[in-house]
Amino acid sequence: MYSKEVEKFLSSKKISLGDRIRIEDSKTSTDGVLMPQTEAGDPNSIVIKLDNGYNVGLKFSRGLKIKRMEGGKKLETFPVRKFEQKPNLPKVSLLATGGTIASRIDYKTGAVHMAFSPEEFFFAVPQLADLISFKEVKQLSNIASEDMTYEIWQKIATETAKELNAGAHAVLITHGTDTMHFSSAALSFMLQNLSGPVILTGAQRSSDRGSSDTVINLICSAIIGGYSDIGEVGVCMHAENADTFCNFIRGTKVRKMHTSNRNAFQPVNYSPIAKVWPNKKIEYTNNYRKILKGKVIADTKFEPRISLLKAYPNSDPSIIDYQIKKGVKGFVIEATGLGHVPTSEKKLSWIPHIKDAVRSGVPVVVAPQTIFGRLNLNVYRNGRMLLDVGAIDGQDMLPETAYVKLGWILGHTKNMEKIKELMMKNLVGEISERTELETFPV
Amino acid sequence: MYSKEVEKFLSSKKISLGDRIRIEDSKTSTDGVLMPQTEAGDPNSIVIKLDNGYNVGLKFSRGLKIKRMEGGKKLETFPVRKFEQKPNLPKVSLLATGGTIASRIDYKTGAVHMAFSPEEFFFAVPQLADLISFKEVKQLSNIASEDMTYEIWQKIATETAKELNAGAHAVLITHGTDTMHFSSAALSFMLQNLSGPVILTGAQRSSDRGSSDTVINLICSAIIGGYSDIGEVGVCMHAENADTFCNFIRGTKVRKMHTSNRNAFQPVNYSPIAKVWPNKKIEYTNNYRKILKGKVIADTKFEPRISLLKAYPNSDPSIIDYQIKKGVKGFVIEATGLGHVPTSEKKLSWIPHIKDAVRSGVPVVVAPQTIFGRLNLNVYRNGRMLLDVGAIDGQDMLPETAYVKLGWILGHTKNMEKIKELMMKNLVGEISERTELETFPV
Repeated sequence: MYSKEVEKFLSSKKISLGDRIRIEDSKTSTDGVLMPQTEAGDPNSIVIKLDNGYNVGLKFSRGLKIKRMEGGKKLETFPVRKFEQKPNLPKVSLLATGGTIASRIDYKTGAVHMAFSPEEFFFAVPQLADLISFKEVKQLSNIASEDMTYEIWQKIATETAKELNAGAHAVLITHGTDTMHFSSAALSFMLQNLSGPVILTGAQRSSDRGSSDTVINLICSAIIGGYSDIGEVGVCMHAENADTFCNFIRGTKVRKMHTSNRNAFQPVNYSPIAKVWPNKKIEYTNNYRKILKGKVIADTKFEPRISLLKAYPNSDPSIIDYQIKKGVKGFVIEATGLGHVPTSEKKLSWIPHIKDAVRSGVPVVVAPQTIFGRLNLNVYRNGRMLLDVGAIDGQDMLPETAYVKLGWILGHTKNMEKIKELMMKNLVGEISERTELETFPV
Repeated sequence: MYSKEVEKFLSSKKISLGDRIRIEDSKTSTDGVLMPQTEAGDPNSIVIKLDNGYNVGLKFSRGLKIKRMEGGKKLETFPVRKFEQKPNLPKVSLLATGGTIASRIDYKTGAVHMAFSPEEFFFAVPQLADLISFKEVKQLSNIASEDMTYEIWQKIATETAKELNAGAHAVLITHGTDTMHFSSAALSFMLQNLSGPVILTGAQRSSDRGSSDTVINLICSAIIGGYSDIGEVGVCMHAENADTFCNFIRGTKVRKMHTSNRNAFQPVNYSPIAKVWPNKKIEYTNNYRKILKGKVIADTKFEPRISLLKAYPNSDPSIIDYQIKKGVKGFVIEATGLGHVPTSEKKLSWIPHIKDAVRSGVPVVVAPQTIFGRLNLNVYRNGRMLLDVGAIDGQDMLPETAYVKLGWILGHTKNMEKIKELMMKNLVGEISERTELETFPV
């Protein structure tokens, strides 16, 4: 949405959305198609799509000269050009699930649509055509990621394995950012014996905004996909708020830590596997599993009746009893500090509720509410009380990762000893041997 | 606990806990009292308390010479010396609530006790005696902070106002670290018209460990207390993992972000009010309210029947209905991204449950699950759905702060319009006008 001042100015020039316009100031002249400004964008910034596919935002001022070009010949849909796929480039499959990334505006309605043909991706980010060829581009869902479910995780895992087994060098998954870290954790457990990198990426700002991160995120993801030997699931997103490089972060060690910053995805307790620059430079910055030969397996069994709760002052532990009655089969509790829950007053103590849950065969895992760092249930009496009633130590796992892991393990076994053993064992890098101090940002 | 090797060595020298010993290597000689090593400490590091009150850890090696001094004269309790209070120094009152800080070891039992007389504080941190005099030292509770309750918040607020109104220049509150940020938020709302700074501090490592942060945290807190003109409640803790300076962070804009690091307390969406160095240097780094004249008010009315929930993939929104039936009077929901909850499938959509809650007079506030950044419920359809059913926009408030604020507001009014107005209004700095990008750590 533009400000009233901008709207008034544009209408005085008979310029409307989709028109080809020229903007001139004292020094430069810029041609492009007038785009709508999103609701979160600067209402005094005029967004135009350049011929190279990029959007730029130009701050409106009375000094700007703006005129309509090609009068009357208005673009009503996103202009798509044929791009030739280059067969010698690495073959990457793209699975689209929804979210802001690679969206395009319908000029008629103002609605945002997902791009889903190779041509549309190449038009949105022309540089991709020089990096990879698309083996396959499929839309698996079209949802905002807050609406993601375990059924879609299963579908993504199955399709990813299928693509890799059918010859794709890598699979790129476009995803809304809100819950991308839950999905990356789920795929980390579900996908085994990876023959290529599996990269989740998205956009914090829509591609029709000047500040969109779509372009660099897709390019860096394509570089990891086409040119790395990483046999892991990870998230590839902006590493900083400028357009310089992205991080590829292990799927179980990443969390969205900011509502709107482009570098919202931060590594937690394990530094990024690689830094990636749009000029194809990859710098490996941590240990990782390399790609394997043989068949990729999608082991998607999952128990969705699990719950993630938070313990805090005056919190009500009876939710545990309520949810067990409703059929919940496992809990992850975000515990305070080194792994504590309220223990003092009889009414508010979580300990008897956890004890009852474990006794009735429902596992209870504790994970760090602080997000960063590692639990140590042995330091204080209140931590040892949790161990005494059978709670499982989530060590340095993110609560979100512990939640997804518990659902995946419960999809495979109901045996409490086995559940405990698997939850405490590092399966895919979700538990670090040592907590890296340098991943704690200050 | 020491390693078997260290234990064996000590017992071969007939040295036991509480003995005065001398440790010599090729260059230096150190005398002190042998302390127990905590369970989280390095089992190969020998901790001794020096005569100046400091503990040091010395890495054990076969090259060290260790001998027992003053044979047989074993210290059985913490040695306390008389310190003279200097009447010309600023008068500060200290309210102890529990936690690791300023604890002392009983050599007989190995148990940790809280220090609570001025002498004991001065012995633990001798430098305090040159900075402040204690108007009063009171122990209000002796709990780990995971056992903190709203009743204790009320007691702390009442006692703090009493001390300030009786002439204390400042009040220093020692507190366990797990939920210190909940308490600092609660006191921020409860205490009005402050005539001096109210400082919460604690220790991430116990004072009987070489790496303890007790000393610098208490010194910096005393400096803010005695020598600043800040009329706010805040947390004063290590700013980095070295012993150089502390931050004083607004009580509503701080969160424990690491399980064990000494710099676990980080500012969120509002940079620290001040940096403090142990040499009495204070650098003011952000806007703050100055101390006021007149009477300090403790407005402690609080509705404890409130709940903090998290929305995530496959989460069960029926907890809302269950808790309303149980008497819960208000909710804060940690929403994803810019302020979203699952909306798609009928069974999993949170929207109808939130709608019912609001209709029945129970306010529902959304706050950022990402921790950093500001919500914007207008960008996406799913955000607008929340506004449509009457959810209250928590803007850039921490979920923990929003939770405490809601309980405090519900203690004062049951009128939904008034609740909404107050929740969305910045009362004590809990909502920032602009989100400061520089507080997002990378």
